[in-house]
Amino acid sequence: MNDSDPDSIDALPAEPGEVGLVAPVDYVSDEPFTFESGRTIPGFTLRYETYGRLNAAGDNAILVCHALSGDHHCAGFHSLSDRKVGWWNNIIGPGKALDTNRYFVLGCNVLGGCQGSTGPLSVDPETGQPYGINFPIVSIRDMVRTQERWLRAIGVTQLAGVIGGSMGGMQVLEWGITFPGFVRKLLAMATTARESAQAIAFNEVGRQAILQDPDWNEGNYASGEGPRVGLAIARMMAHITYLSDASMARKFGRRTVANSKESTGAFDVQFEVESYLRYQGKSFTNRFDANSYLYITRALDQFDLAAGPGSLEAALQPVTADALVVGFTSDWLFPPNQNRAIVTALLRAGKQASYAELTTDLGHDSFLLESPELYALVRDFLAS
Amino acid sequence: MNDSDPDSIDALPAEPGEVGLVAPVDYVSDEPFTFESGRTIPGFTLRYETYGRLNAAGDNAILVCHALSGDHHCAGFHSLSDRKVGWWNNIIGPGKALDTNRYFVLGCNVLGGCQGSTGPLSVDPETGQPYGINFPIVSIRDMVRTQERWLRAIGVTQLAGVIGGSMGGMQVLEWGITFPGFVRKLLAMATTARESAQAIAFNEVGRQAILQDPDWNEGNYASGEGPRVGLAIARMMAHITYLSDASMARKFGRRTVANSKESTGAFDVQFEVESYLRYQGKSFTNRFDANSYLYITRALDQFDLAAGPGSLEAALQPVTADALVVGFTSDWLFPPNQNRAIVTALLRAGKQASYAELTTDLGHDSFLLESPELYALVRDFLAS
Repeated sequence: MNDSDPDSIDALPAEPGEVGLVAPVDYVSDEPFTFESGRTIPGFTLRYETYGRLNAAGDNAILVCHALSGDHHCAGFHSLSDRKVGWWNNIIGPGKALDTNRYFVLGCNVLGGCQGSTGPLSVDPETGQPYGINFPIVSIRDMVRTQERWLRAIGVTQLAGVIGGSMGGMQVLEWGITFPGFVRKLLAMATTARESAQAIAFNEVGRQAILQDPDWNEGNYASGEGPRVGLAIARMMAHITYLSDASMARKFGRRTVANSKESTGAFDVQFEVESYLRYQGKSFTNRFDANSYLYITRALDQFDLAAGPGSLEAALQPVTADALVVGFTSDWLFPPNQNRAIVTALLRAGKQASYAELTTDLGHDSFLLESPELYALVRDFLAS
Repeated sequence: MNDSDPDSIDALPAEPGEVGLVAPVDYVSDEPFTFESGRTIPGFTLRYETYGRLNAAGDNAILVCHALSGDHHCAGFHSLSDRKVGWWNNIIGPGKALDTNRYFVLGCNVLGGCQGSTGPLSVDPETGQPYGINFPIVSIRDMVRTQERWLRAIGVTQLAGVIGGSMGGMQVLEWGITFPGFVRKLLAMATTARESAQAIAFNEVGRQAILQDPDWNEGNYASGEGPRVGLAIARMMAHITYLSDASMARKFGRRTVANSKESTGAFDVQFEVESYLRYQGKSFTNRFDANSYLYITRALDQFDLAAGPGSLEAALQPVTADALVVGFTSDWLFPPNQNRAIVTALLRAGKQASYAELTTDLGHDSFLLESPELYALVRDFLAS
């Protein structure tokens, strides 16, 4: 992933309004890190990208937190032949809602991830072998605590904001609670303060598909190999939960794939939606590690801010930042009421918080998709 | 399943209001049957049960149509040691909504099923081997056409009604269209006139879990063996779609299973909802055939009444029976609007039809669960 030369990147002008070529960087901490679960590793790496420039005070940074299957590559592209921009390119860039003329925007791959940050694929220095499922159980708070160490190390003194959707939104809330002095604005969307039984259930089906794939082999497999079938099944199912009934009806309806009935058998692909999901499942296995999927879904499931302090209001008591939470009407994975509940608790705790609900039929993925309404909300909130 | 002696059953008095001991019976047709797909089999068996008595005119029969994972065993129990009553025992019996003092209630396992009716587990007389995936593709209409042959053979001259939820409701609609003179009342619930893209998507994930399980072996496996892992995954996922976010929150919430963290590893069961789903998946593999699951989900996916005639209104034109369609507010698999659309089309086609929407938070499975409101609706509609 470090195949671009930063020098040549600076030499290339970006399109107006685009961040253009970017290159990931690795932050390596040689200090031990102790997980919430109690285990300690001797150090960790976080792979990250930045867009814009850090100001002299070190306080114009905005951290973008990614969701389950996301990574540090939030905007721009990695080489001239790379046609696929980062996953939130539509919101990050000069003049965009996360304005890189003004803010130093950062994204990093989470602890436990598989895109360059320390996770199950990484080599355990004690054994010389990949951690696999000997990696410590990761929590959302662990992810945030590694991010704080990294940000301080690179000169960030205070975050102008932390923003993220889904699991990214969980990190946003943890930031506000764990490092209240370090962040001025919290912007969480399509998220929850506690993973619901239904969401746990879907994650568990995905995990079972992986764990029961013979190629999982108790988590011991070479990088690029492993339980591809189980991981693809997990992704296909999860992908349905990111969309909505209405958006699937519009996007696919009951359209069939040409000549499929005659091709290879009764249960070959027949409908476009089947073909789409099979592709999504298969391509996911080319970019994601199954053990990371297990760890990160477990982090989601264990996320329940109220569990320790007894109530969400009590959990949010340390927050000093202003908060904006955005729910999407068609999101049935983290539905509006779960987003609204965060703001209700913040207000009860006497915090500055507001809730916005965007009407959309695009499901949970709404936060990732082109939305001038969302961009205006983000822009106004950051400027306020 | 035929382990009870019918003579001894008649000798045993049932509890008041209960059908008591029942025994399944096999109807065997030696006439060839041609599927909608064009293929012909030399005959078929339907396994069925009856509750109540057929009157002299043969016109007091009510056919109960089962859903994907249901069967012919709708009410009562099979032996004195059998503590599990049939799947719709709460609605069938003396004095109940489907009053067996008045009606001759029947249930049969569908064509393509695996509980005694002809399906992929059955032996193909041409090869002497189980059909497996050489079984013809089954449609909802095929199921109904075999039911009509069976009912006429046992002396039913006209159905007082056909009733069913989910895939059972699809059969109800097909009955009204395909054999309009043979049925007086149609009662469909928690169903649809066309499988949605989202529902197809969930079915496809389940099929992929089965098809990619190495033990599926292109559909060739001994009865009781086969792709148990894939079938369990399919069932776990499908089971989530039968419940609702609210009912899962109430039933399981985030309750954990005792001592699980210490037991056997990071990804062992931790939450009650995980334990419940694992049990559901595993127990399903003890009673259901994976190939049947493939065939029946395909029948669901191909169900689209409007596809041939061009509109649902045109498709429903042959109907002469009165219809009642019941939707449930929390059913997100076949949501209220899909149920309402059937009645709208029936009314536009000039038919007698009414729609009732029951407020419940129990999801798709609402139609199976104790509901005095539903029973009153059914009773009044049949009496009207």
